[in-house]
Amino acid sequence: MASGFQTLTGFRDFDPRDCQLRNYLFETWRRVATRYGFVEYETPMLEPTELYLKKSGGELSSQLFRFQDQGDRDVTLRPEVTASLARLAATKQRDYPKPLKWFEIGQCFRYEKPQKGRTREFYQFNTDILGDDSPAADAELIALSIDTMRELGFTKEDFKVRLSDRSFLISRLQDFTSGTNFHSLWKHPEKVIEVLSIIDRFGKVPAEKSAEDLSKFGISLQQVNILFTESMNLVGTGRLGEIIENLNARGLGDYVEVDLSIVRGLAYYTGVVFEIFDTKKSLRAVAGGGRYDTLISTLTEGKTDLPAMGFAMGDVVIGLFVQEVASASRKFEVWKMNNASCDIYLVIDDEEKRPEALALVQELREAGLRIDYALTKTKYDKQLKAAAHTLAPFALVVGRDFPQLTLRNLNARAQEDIHPNTDTVAYLKKRLSEPQGPLLA
Amino acid sequence: MASGFQTLTGFRDFDPRDCQLRNYLFETWRRVATRYGFVEYETPMLEPTELYLKKSGGELSSQLFRFQDQGDRDVTLRPEVTASLARLAATKQRDYPKPLKWFEIGQCFRYEKPQKGRTREFYQFNTDILGDDSPAADAELIALSIDTMRELGFTKEDFKVRLSDRSFLISRLQDFTSGTNFHSLWKHPEKVIEVLSIIDRFGKVPAEKSAEDLSKFGISLQQVNILFTESMNLVGTGRLGEIIENLNARGLGDYVEVDLSIVRGLAYYTGVVFEIFDTKKSLRAVAGGGRYDTLISTLTEGKTDLPAMGFAMGDVVIGLFVQEVASASRKFEVWKMNNASCDIYLVIDDEEKRPEALALVQELREAGLRIDYALTKTKYDKQLKAAAHTLAPFALVVGRDFPQLTLRNLNARAQEDIHPNTDTVAYLKKRLSEPQGPLLA
Repeated sequence: MASGFQTLTGFRDFDPRDCQLRNYLFETWRRVATRYGFVEYETPMLEPTELYLKKSGGELSSQLFRFQDQGDRDVTLRPEVTASLARLAATKQRDYPKPLKWFEIGQCFRYEKPQKGRTREFYQFNTDILGDDSPAADAELIALSIDTMRELGFTKEDFKVRLSDRSFLISRLQDFTSGTNFHSLWKHPEKVIEVLSIIDRFGKVPAEKSAEDLSKFGISLQQVNILFTESMNLVGTGRLGEIIENLNARGLGDYVEVDLSIVRGLAYYTGVVFEIFDTKKSLRAVAGGGRYDTLISTLTEGKTDLPAMGFAMGDVVIGLFVQEVASASRKFEVWKMNNASCDIYLVIDDEEKRPEALALVQELREAGLRIDYALTKTKYDKQLKAAAHTLAPFALVVGRDFPQLTLRNLNARAQEDIHPNTDTVAYLKKRLSEPQGPLLA
Repeated sequence: MASGFQTLTGFRDFDPRDCQLRNYLFETWRRVATRYGFVEYETPMLEPTELYLKKSGGELSSQLFRFQDQGDRDVTLRPEVTASLARLAATKQRDYPKPLKWFEIGQCFRYEKPQKGRTREFYQFNTDILGDDSPAADAELIALSIDTMRELGFTKEDFKVRLSDRSFLISRLQDFTSGTNFHSLWKHPEKVIEVLSIIDRFGKVPAEKSAEDLSKFGISLQQVNILFTESMNLVGTGRLGEIIENLNARGLGDYVEVDLSIVRGLAYYTGVVFEIFDTKKSLRAVAGGGRYDTLISTLTEGKTDLPAMGFAMGDVVIGLFVQEVASASRKFEVWKMNNASCDIYLVIDDEEKRPEALALVQELREAGLRIDYALTKTKYDKQLKAAAHTLAPFALVVGRDFPQLTLRNLNARAQEDIHPNTDTVAYLKKRLSEPQGPLLA
């Protein structure tokens, strides 16, 4: 193959088969979000680089697809959507009653080392509630994240939401250094982030390393571990308690557990944070989110104060997870069957009847049916083979007896004549609404 | 507002209101394509620059968002999708029976001067038939383009498909120079493209300029004009005639007229080309396409020979057109009403019943209904106001008499009680399936 004729490393071509999984995720994400009363927005793929440097404190800056455009602007392919959302919400919030419940599905770009579950582009499902700082808003978004997983076919056994609260964690950590020289470190936001990062790496680095890092802040690993163990008692009456009570009222309490070791990487989270974990691979987070009450104020230099809570799920890890878990994979298979590339394959058994067949194709399509057929003269058997390939449940045969038609059930391998006086459209719609034999059982 | 806190020139933020038009176009495009038996694919937003230089002979190269990535690759934000499709089809074609009927909806990027109807990013609907070089394939794709317009609410009076055939045009032009010194110019493909470009600029530059340019190839403007006038007779029996006959069989013949002055800009078209024009503004093309039988062979250096016919429509011009034409605009309004952000707004009239209300919210959402509600304690009137804002047809009131519920029709301003023994989900689904009063009339 010629050079320049391959995708870039870490970028994906989706042929129609690969595109099915992507579309299945998009459809499911969109369906769950709209059930929750969220409305869709979109922001540009390309943004001024400053937007990201300002927001994340440079956290993502080593991974940016960043360049000068033809007008010498410093521009970047978005690594995430929240910074753009913050701008959009700050600009347009007056046009909408609060809270804003907004979602987005779109591509992001990060220059990372490609590996299983990690690409240089990925689609992300972003849901955010803006203008409401209540635990009820946290619960609504966590419920949405749980229902997204359930809608994809995952069960309590497959995943768990681990929930934490950064502000609660920080105040408890501060207690440990109370009265020591270390206590003054907490006045420096960047030091706080440093402590959180150490906790975030628990389980990914040796315990000795974590202990050593924590000691620089006057905290022992043992103290932190005791805090984690006691967390259920400590949080029962606080904000996390309210969230869990709210989720219990919905019957979703079983999906959640408090785990104060959950920190989430991004520097801008201010309070509640959560991650969805694959229970079989306990280190694999498939999605996550958290509260970022100060980001919009920071980005607008104090002009707009909009507390916010967000949740995001990428397509790559969840796509692998769907294919690995039987119940989820089965749901996707059923979806594929129901989204076969056409409803009816029209077979032209008498080439002289092609004009009549084309008129029929047009009539059926105008009635909303998905119709395919052989564009040019093709052997009968080959047409039936093409019909089978489309997964269409029926073939409709136009032959020498036209206007009489024959309907073949391609799953049950039965056929029936449709008499000329029949209302073909109504008849076919009725047949399509019935179970179509073994394949769809 | 802080610098770096605006979208780049020519890039669009879509707040939920703006996003409706985008989603309406996407939904319509996808629906028409699947009715025609097309299946969806996607290719990367970022590609090796070489892919475009190779394909278009540099035609788009001055408009590229082109840069070096962190691995020093020469990369480009795609200005169009056909080059990527050619790669994907060449790589995967063996996995699919021919012809491939593939479509894509995605963003493209061109560094152009922004103006009305032109942005630096745009969404494009791409449909292609690959592996079939018949006039029947041309007709199928042209029919799809017509039905896309009709599905958007446009009528015969609003648009017209202008159809031409480059190879027919070229052979007729060659006749004019037969026996002259100019005839040898036709051996050079770049000269042929030059002649086509002159014709493409008819109506955009003064006639004297066109005449002068044509004279360099031994052709007079008068000859070309006579050819255009006679084109209907000339093409009646050729490939264009077959296409029109096919469209007539579908009842779509009235939408098409032959116009040999249609050339289309891109250098890689080899045969039939067509454009959809806004009849009120005869210079405004809203979409177009054509046959490119040699592109895939060129890009694969002869390894894969796949004749192809494509059609593309951008979102920007068609979006303006939808808003300008009453019948199309009306259709979009109905869509917006049917895609209100929720089906039922749940009003909590007794805060003590919030846990029960949350359970009900969950139950209704699990049944597939789109439900919104006030996350925290809110005055009754304010909840009804929020309900009206969502355009939901109904408010469901949870009050002190729970489990008795009250259903308010927000359009007709009537209300009814739902008694505790009722199957709430079934009852609400039934009510939602009925006409909901004046707003939806």
